[in-house]
Amino acid sequence: MEKQKIEFMLSQVAAFTGGVLEGGDISVRGVSVPEDQKEGTLCMINVQANADMTNGAASAYVVAEKVLVETDKPVVRVKDPRAALVKLMLAFHPAEPVRHHISPLASVPAGVKYTEPVNIGNFVSIGENVEIGENTRIFPGCVIGDGVKIGKNCIIYPNVTIYENCTLGSGVIIHAGAVIGADGFGFIPGPNPVKIPQKGTVILEDFVEIGANTCIDRATIGATVIGFGTKMDNLVMVGHNTRLGKACLIASQVGFSGSIEAGDGIVAAGQVGFSDHIKIAAGSVFGGQAGVPNDIKEKGMYLGAPCIPMLKFAKASAVFQELPELKRRVVNLEKQKDRN
Amino acid sequence: MEKQKIEFMLSQVAAFTGGVLEGGDISVRGVSVPEDQKEGTLCMINVQANADMTNGAASAYVVAEKVLVETDKPVVRVKDPRAALVKLMLAFHPAEPVRHHISPLASVPAGVKYTEPVNIGNFVSIGENVEIGENTRIFPGCVIGDGVKIGKNCIIYPNVTIYENCTLGSGVIIHAGAVIGADGFGFIPGPNPVKIPQKGTVILEDFVEIGANTCIDRATIGATVIGFGTKMDNLVMVGHNTRLGKACLIASQVGFSGSIEAGDGIVAAGQVGFSDHIKIAAGSVFGGQAGVPNDIKEKGMYLGAPCIPMLKFAKASAVFQELPELKRRVVNLEKQKDRN
Amino acid sequence: MEKQKIEFMLSQVAAFTGGVLEGGDISVRGVSVPEDQKEGTLCMINVQANADMTNGAASAYVVAEKVLVETDKPVVRVKDPRAALVKLMLAFHPAEPVRHHISPLASVPAGVKYTEPVNIGNFVSIGENVEIGENTRIFPGCVIGDGVKIGKNCIIYPNVTIYENCTLGSGVIIHAGAVIGADGFGFIPGPNPVKIPQKGTVILEDFVEIGANTCIDRATIGATVIGFGTKMDNLVMVGHNTRLGKACLIASQVGFSGSIEAGDGIVAAGQVGFSDHIKIAAGSVFGGQAGVPNDIKEKGMYLGAPCIPMLKFAKASAVFQELPELKRRVVNLEKQKDRN
Repeated sequence: MEKQKIEFMLSQVAAFTGGVLEGGDISVRGVSVPEDQKEGTLCMINVQANADMTNGAASAYVVAEKVLVETDKPVVRVKDPRAALVKLMLAFHPAEPVRHHISPLASVPAGVKYTEPVNIGNFVSIGENVEIGENTRIFPGCVIGDGVKIGKNCIIYPNVTIYENCTLGSGVIIHAGAVIGADGFGFIPGPNPVKIPQKGTVILEDFVEIGANTCIDRATIGATVIGFGTKMDNLVMVGHNTRLGKACLIASQVGFSGSIEAGDGIVAAGQVGFSDHIKIAAGSVFGGQAGVPNDIKEKGMYLGAPCIPMLKFAKASAVFQELPELKRRVVNLEKQKDRN
Repeated sequence: MEKQKIEFMLSQVAAFTGGVLEGGDISVRGVSVPEDQKEGTLCMINVQANADMTNGAASAYVVAEKVLVETDKPVVRVKDPRAALVKLMLAFHPAEPVRHHISPLASVPAGVKYTEPVNIGNFVSIGENVEIGENTRIFPGCVIGDGVKIGKNCIIYPNVTIYENCTLGSGVIIHAGAVIGADGFGFIPGPNPVKIPQKGTVILEDFVEIGANTCIDRATIGATVIGFGTKMDNLVMVGHNTRLGKACLIASQVGFSGSIEAGDGIVAAGQVGFSDHIKIAAGSVFGGQAGVPNDIKEKGMYLGAPCIPMLKFAKASAVFQELPELKRRVVNLEKQKDRN
Repeated sequence: MEKQKIEFMLSQVAAFTGGVLEGGDISVRGVSVPEDQKEGTLCMINVQANADMTNGAASAYVVAEKVLVETDKPVVRVKDPRAALVKLMLAFHPAEPVRHHISPLASVPAGVKYTEPVNIGNFVSIGENVEIGENTRIFPGCVIGDGVKIGKNCIIYPNVTIYENCTLGSGVIIHAGAVIGADGFGFIPGPNPVKIPQKGTVILEDFVEIGANTCIDRATIGATVIGFGTKMDNLVMVGHNTRLGKACLIASQVGFSGSIEAGDGIVAAGQVGFSDHIKIAAGSVFGGQAGVPNDIKEKGMYLGAPCIPMLKFAKASAVFQELPELKRRVVNLEKQKDRN
């Protein structure tokens, strides 16, 4: 699958990962996973549970410092295996420079402003008064509405839709099928609910990453904002006028209703749901499927629906399954009492 | 972001919102939100909690009748702030008339029937025997299957897919990436599950709105139906042969399984899940993440999974987190009893 | 809606469904549902609850052996109504042979390898070094990345995105808007979270079906794998490096985190969530909205979040709503005790 054959000596790997080489200085040409090791590659062992996998097909191992292994193969010892993995991946899969190309099969109006190089794929439809920064790539099938501003070094994967007047900072990545700037969900209930026009925008700050088929709705007035460096997985929903802080990590299928104010560094596991018009303290962590109906005023780890501190939930949850037994014991006590 | 500079005198605003002007009759040129007020604009204050924001940058305020404010700025008092907001938004953002245009970059077979004006964007692919009503807009990247019928005054945003033979009424809005009419999920389990062909259709009645990346599956036989005026947010799932009533409001990430009969005016908050083959009483309201395993025979407000009446859930839920303590108390009572 | 007028005598229907004809041998021209019977069609009655619908507009009925009905209309009695339904649907809606056609409005590089017939729709964008098996159809608006391999007899519905180097077996169906191979969600937390490059792939084995707007992320290294014959509904999420077994049935809005090992024949109802790095025993069944935080070591039926055996959950859940009452009873017992 690799276009170039990239090889490194283990001594080079040790150098760029800040690790220590134990064993022979052989050459390797890729990274493989413990469960599917390939000859000629490096394999990463970062937990003790995988320590017995250091005698597989891989030719060498990158091993976290605290993991004890026994192997005849060369090992590069690293302090921080995740940081080492990033460096390995970038070394073996270097980013290719953006080649300036505007597909003749794309629709790019004359008034679009861009700084070369940009790469615009087949069947991309770009609106009026759009601005695109240098080194930005827009993959096939994307639709970019009028007045959209896209920073430099962005990647917009295929079939993404960005509605009019939304703004993307630099280094933004949007995965396939995501929809930025659809109408917020605002209606006055009744026999034929009345639509409240949604005329605000969406702002994705620098280094935001948006997962596949994720939807960020435009504000009614003003802007829905995703803060600097926040990363979102697939199929996430962000409602109108919600403002997420910086460097949040939002897993798949999480739902933010409208008009939420969420602080920096929030972490939400899969399928968490946040009610509308609430405030979330910076740094809060939510376990999978948590339901957040009210303000979270203190940073903490939360679980359950409605969510409570994680440890409290775990303890209550353990008793939950004993409820029928607990009820029986109460009934017994009552019978005893009656007899007395 | 506004193409036209639209300005109104406050006396005009008072007239079209049915409000009363208190203070000077100045001109305003847009609406801004309390948290981000702009000079020259009107700002809406509809809850007492925001009453102290009437001395911000905005030049005038639209204030709900019952909210007490102190400000030197002019105020338009309105009875129903949401209705006023709709009127304000439509006044400052008037809908542009649909300009008849069929993109030369679209694929529109000769047999397609439409009434001018219609607007069909770039890279739209339209099947055989499709009908499109007047004033309907189809944005770039949409794929419309054979035999699809689309009413008048519809808006189909980019990258929507409508499978063959589905029917849309008039005034229907479908947001980007939505999929109307994919196969219902029907299989006979086994080592190689057998697909039950899905040959029915989807009917979206007049004034239905479908959110971005929402999926409405086609029926096995017959039709999946979304009733008149029902509005759905993003990432909603509607299974095959389900029939939703009129004027329902369905928030993001809600899932309807197959063959559900849901009455008119149902409201479901985010991430609610409905089991298959159940009936839901008209007017029922479901709180976020509710799970609905059985028929809901009486209109009411429901919460929890399995859902129960909302108040009951709130009370039970309050005790849930005390369960470890409650268990300890039962254990103490038992010890006491043993000692007696 | 049908292009051809296909008619069968009831004796033919009895023959191909393995059923027994009771009553006159008339001709029928389609299948309709009990709630919306059409004259001239067959209607399927497979549960006793619908037995009184055998005097509707339909001209004949296919009835499950164990259902008691009273009707003057002809009846075809069948042992397995679902198997009969499949045969009926295929008989009345025979698959059309794939017509070889590559749209002149598609972008298909010279190096793409395919075996005729294939059908490639308008505005499809195909990358370099793609392989496409015979009888495969790719609908309009799809984007197929470099190095993708697609088997024979596949159907890729509109606006699907397949990222580079993913592999599809034979007989794979992917519904509209699905995204195969977007980056796994891997970041090192921090003030500007660091992206862990995602350079693995996705493998969809033979006869996999993927629902509309479902997302299967590519592995960091190695492959995310969906096993032979596994069927997935709409809006499902599968995280990086997860491996699903064969013949699983996964309902809508289910979320699999990363690095899950799931055995064969798993069934998950809607909105189930699976935590990362867990193992799921083959044949396990999960009720709607179940949350699965840990390994499932024994095949069974599970419900709740965190999930427990289904029966246990049902019993505990019944007591849950009595919790306020249970607490009152404990308080009463304590008062009684104090008085003693």
